[in-house]
Amino acid sequence: MTENAEGLTLRLAEFVTTTRFEDLPPEVVAMARLCVGDWLGVTLAGSREAGPNILAAALPRSGPGRSATLIGRRRRATPAAAALINGVAGHVLDFDDTHLPTVLHATGAVTPAVLALAEDLRCGGRRTLTAFALGFELAARVACAVYPWHYDIGWHITGTVGALGAAAGCAALLGLDSTRTAHAVGIAASQAAGLREMFGSMTKSLHPGKAAVNGLQAALWARAGFTSSLQAIEAPRGFGSVLSPQWQPEAALEDLGSSWQILRNGFKPFPCGVVSHPAIEGALRLRADGVLPGDVRELRLRCHPLVGELTGKREPRTGLEGKFSVYYCVATALVLGVLGPQQFTDDAVTQPAVRHLREKVTLSLDPQLAVDEAYVEAVTADGRAVSQYVEHTGGSPANPLTATQLQEKFQRNARAVVDAPRIPRLTRLAFGLGEVPDVRRLMALMRLKAAPGKV
Amino acid sequence: MTENAEGLTLRLAEFVTTTRFEDLPPEVVAMARLCVGDWLGVTLAGSREAGPNILAAALPRSGPGRSATLIGRRRRATPAAAALINGVAGHVLDFDDTHLPTVLHATGAVTPAVLALAEDLRCGGRRTLTAFALGFELAARVACAVYPWHYDIGWHITGTVGALGAAAGCAALLGLDSTRTAHAVGIAASQAAGLREMFGSMTKSLHPGKAAVNGLQAALWARAGFTSSLQAIEAPRGFGSVLSPQWQPEAALEDLGSSWQILRNGFKPFPCGVVSHPAIEGALRLRADGVLPGDVRELRLRCHPLVGELTGKREPRTGLEGKFSVYYCVATALVLGVLGPQQFTDDAVTQPAVRHLREKVTLSLDPQLAVDEAYVEAVTADGRAVSQYVEHTGGSPANPLTATQLQEKFQRNARAVVDAPRIPRLTRLAFGLGEVPDVRRLMALMRLKAAPGKV
Repeated sequence: MTENAEGLTLRLAEFVTTTRFEDLPPEVVAMARLCVGDWLGVTLAGSREAGPNILAAALPRSGPGRSATLIGRRRRATPAAAALINGVAGHVLDFDDTHLPTVLHATGAVTPAVLALAEDLRCGGRRTLTAFALGFELAARVACAVYPWHYDIGWHITGTVGALGAAAGCAALLGLDSTRTAHAVGIAASQAAGLREMFGSMTKSLHPGKAAVNGLQAALWARAGFTSSLQAIEAPRGFGSVLSPQWQPEAALEDLGSSWQILRNGFKPFPCGVVSHPAIEGALRLRADGVLPGDVRELRLRCHPLVGELTGKREPRTGLEGKFSVYYCVATALVLGVLGPQQFTDDAVTQPAVRHLREKVTLSLDPQLAVDEAYVEAVTADGRAVSQYVEHTGGSPANPLTATQLQEKFQRNARAVVDAPRIPRLTRLAFGLGEVPDVRRLMALMRLKAAPGKV
Repeated sequence: MTENAEGLTLRLAEFVTTTRFEDLPPEVVAMARLCVGDWLGVTLAGSREAGPNILAAALPRSGPGRSATLIGRRRRATPAAAALINGVAGHVLDFDDTHLPTVLHATGAVTPAVLALAEDLRCGGRRTLTAFALGFELAARVACAVYPWHYDIGWHITGTVGALGAAAGCAALLGLDSTRTAHAVGIAASQAAGLREMFGSMTKSLHPGKAAVNGLQAALWARAGFTSSLQAIEAPRGFGSVLSPQWQPEAALEDLGSSWQILRNGFKPFPCGVVSHPAIEGALRLRADGVLPGDVRELRLRCHPLVGELTGKREPRTGLEGKFSVYYCVATALVLGVLGPQQFTDDAVTQPAVRHLREKVTLSLDPQLAVDEAYVEAVTADGRAVSQYVEHTGGSPANPLTATQLQEKFQRNARAVVDAPRIPRLTRLAFGLGEVPDVRRLMALMRLKAAPGKV
């Protein structure tokens, strides 16, 4: 334990317990609203997937304490069950926002816990938004302290530090003092888990779900007097040293309260590997330029080398594989002009029209390019070449998605689940959490009215 | 990943799915019965502690699916809640059995999960005992592969590999095939957690509780089709490599099916640090020899150096500190002739009679002695010296507790919670799980009939 680590857990806990809505800079409030709004849409879209469906089917059909919304379903559930299942649904599409410096999905772990508890406690939107922002901040700061070593050895950082953030956010909502908040963070730290080996299986999205429910329960238990260590993060056998080959405690405390990690958050325009996004954007622009898929003889991509390494699957056969195939993604973008969750089903990736174009895509890797940069060129049957250069793809730090773009994304996500007439009001409330007098009003809109089959 | 690790998870899963009660050697069956019986008594005694009480109080008061017994309470709960709370109660007294080569409390993590599920499924005792033995074996074998490196860096091995064992035991009970069993183990592996930093706080005993409920849920979810990795343990970013600085996969597979780790299990005669047990046994023998506490001028201990390092607290002020004070323990043994959970309350450790004698205890450390060996000598007021030499203390590998001793321990544990007339039948059933036609019959006896205050 370095000197700088002394009192780390308690100092973070104190920050969580003493920060009020009024202390949040306007840009933090604005970002927190976008995080929650975007996550709600992504979770609506994800609520149809097999993983969350299996967990929801395992719940009892009735019983007391069902005060929390299962997003995109008709039923409600206990806050713990809602935190779990909404947490899984929010991450299953790989479409949720990312704390860019650490690849942490802080929103994905903290929001389901905070919203479920806020609904149970009938909290107002401001208090809820504040708790979310503080939970996010604690998680992201611990992530900064252990990244990259922790991630590199194989931890899914969203599952691990996500639990600490969920505990902190719920502790804030409950109004715990700093000692009990530290206990809550400690209880969560001793349950922090999630292996990167699970990427590609349903267990990947179980990680933020479990982080959420474990954090929520940790806060409730700490309130009731359950104890952990008050040095859970910094102790020689604490979170930092045990879960990371090396770490820098000072990164967790640097400019605490004056600089905000949530401002380093980024949103995804497409539910697939982020490195493929510049090429996808280039393909969409070619389509807007009038390039017709049937005319294309060759579709040439020039991208950062990571595009080949992470999304180089030539012949995807499942929806999940499609997310890791830049070939499939750009072909779909040019054919359909859209790339949302519906384009990553097992059926979608084998559609002949897209497959036909996919086979004409060529990829060259250029280490001179940045990871948010790409050249895309369509060569038509008559030998004409039309090209697009994407300098900073949408959603990258230099070119963040605007609030309007995020609302459009929300609407596309919601459309798959919610009746069209409800969507405008839903969008307004989803991105306006700070103004909602009672979180239950927002969450009620996230439930289905009509029977959508088995939910 | 070494060559020997190939297919490790699936090979262990296959062992679990193909081993029947008839395949268990008689000594394995006998040991499994002792494990379950001893654990039930320890859990009864632990059910009065603050930690499990807090968790039990957080449960809903009613609701469906309450098919599983909360040991030592009146209410029943869902299998998940019962696995959690019984798991915590079973470990909170530091009185449960230990897989000696790895300090793993395999029984403590596997039994609460298997019993809760067996009760829900209305299983017979043989099937339940088999599932327990297989869950124990998988956990202990994975523990052998990662010990000591995993424990040394700070993992509470009971929380981590315990979850895998609970998943395997529950998978066996559900009759899952080897693929689904491997998925269950993988889901559990990706939730494996528990920091040694938590020793001394309530979160320590949360670890086996969480291992139990996470393992139970993993098996149920795997049955329903939830997927994880089929190489969760051996993959480069799997359990072995991520949670241990080094590991030896071959240790998990050595003589699988022909040698049994459960036979290397040991039981505790006293609910305190195991290194102090030889001195305690010596003090009890002095008492049997007629040494009266009031006559003692000095009580001299000569012990292995670890006794000073781990249990050297001179002036314990809480029950928990008493568990780590050989001075307090031997004084109590000589004064009261018994050392059970009731002797480790905050009140008990400050009783004047014991404190008076405690101050007369001297400890010398002798590296020539083994850790299960001690010399104890009482010097009386008239200068007479009476001594006892304990070569292998009871509960050590060379001198295991007998079935009769374990039944007596059970009865002492049960007496604190259960009405005396029920205890003989309870003891018979607790140690006779293999013969119970329906586990519910045994578990019904573990619930309270009368109101014991707030439970």
